[in-house]
Amino acid sequence: MPTISADESGALLDRYGPLAQAVRELIDVTIRTRADDDTAREVTAAVRELTERLRGESLSDEPGLRYLVEGRPLAWGNAVVGLRNPIAPPLVIEHGENGHCWADFHLGAAYEGPPSLVHGGVSALVLDHILGEAASDGLTKPLYTGTITVKYLRGTPLGPLHAEASIYRKEGVKTYCRGHISDAEGVTVEADGVFITPSWARDGAQ
Amino acid sequence: MPTISADESGALLDRYGPLAQAVRELIDVTIRTRADDDTAREVTAAVRELTERLRGESLSDEPGLRYLVEGRPLAWGNAVVGLRNPIAPPLVIEHGENGHCWADFHLGAAYEGPPSLVHGGVSALVLDHILGEAASDGLTKPLYTGTITVKYLRGTPLGPLHAEASIYRKEGVKTYCRGHISDAEGVTVEADGVFITPSWARDGAQ
Repeated sequence: MPTISADESGALLDRYGPLAQAVRELIDVTIRTRADDDTAREVTAAVRELTERLRGESLSDEPGLRYLVEGRPLAWGNAVVGLRNPIAPPLVIEHGENGHCWADFHLGAAYEGPPSLVHGGVSALVLDHILGEAASDGLTKPLYTGTITVKYLRGTPLGPLHAEASIYRKEGVKTYCRGHISDAEGVTVEADGVFITPSWARDGAQ
Repeated sequence: MPTISADESGALLDRYGPLAQAVRELIDVTIRTRADDDTAREVTAAVRELTERLRGESLSDEPGLRYLVEGRPLAWGNAVVGLRNPIAPPLVIEHGENGHCWADFHLGAAYEGPPSLVHGGVSALVLDHILGEAASDGLTKPLYTGTITVKYLRGTPLGPLHAEASIYRKEGVKTYCRGHISDAEGVTVEADGVFITPSWARDGAQ
């Protein structure tokens, strides 16, 4: 992965971040609109034109472009935290000591499962990601998820949410993490996962 | 949830389905474009205008609109199968005997975690959904996920994929399901989950 400076990264994000955010808002109204046939048809045609315009420019096969900035992958295309990925809420993850990390975020209509509730699988998606961030110290260590168990205590309402995770044990190539999602009333979903250091990165090979 | 006829449902889907599909394609190029500053700015402004136009029409607080057609919820806003939800791939799920169900689908740039691989949490999202479909006979029975365990055998490549699930045990209020995701080479991720019938739907109350 090529390394770029923080300045270059900032300039690229100024260029593409607002586009992804605008598409996030379009996603929300696409699900919720009651527009009539004509309006729906015209907006659909206009969206297709914009897609063709962007497609006319060169497209990257490395979604979100892959760069390292100060030793961290940008992960702009990532499905959970990618600032260039309109399907990412996106989570902005903060890191404390010993892998502890957390994020406050908002899930709207696009993340629904049962009426007015977050899709259970979306909770699993968020937890898989934040446990992985804890295990890998903000994606700076090569690790893959071995197994993750997600336990649903009650429905998670759409709206403002909090997620956090931390490491509770390290044993050879295995790092064990635990985390949860909560709303204003408390924890709604818990997760426990084991993350594995790949063989090529063992024995100080990293 | 109001019931509508298959004809009404078809007409609504003709109106809103192509819009969601157009937005899906816009999401893909938004992540992958190398457009210059001017193009990015102009497309961003145009996307915002389309959003305002849809927002100007009445927006529903029931994402995707909630209707029953022939006893099945349409789930148009659902994050995995919603035909009106641009973040849903969407999976088109087929149902066989005893809860067995499956889907062939394609995951592109928007679903990436590690370079060229599906985000582990997206695999969990897909599996949570398809196990839930198996347990609830296509979402026709009220059930919520108790616990799901997802085991990663190897990385899942972006591209064409298959997922399937079935019930392997029923015990009182608990329904146990198992499933997996596979690519052309075989299984990449397995899942095991237990689904619970809520108390209000027990004792034949359904």
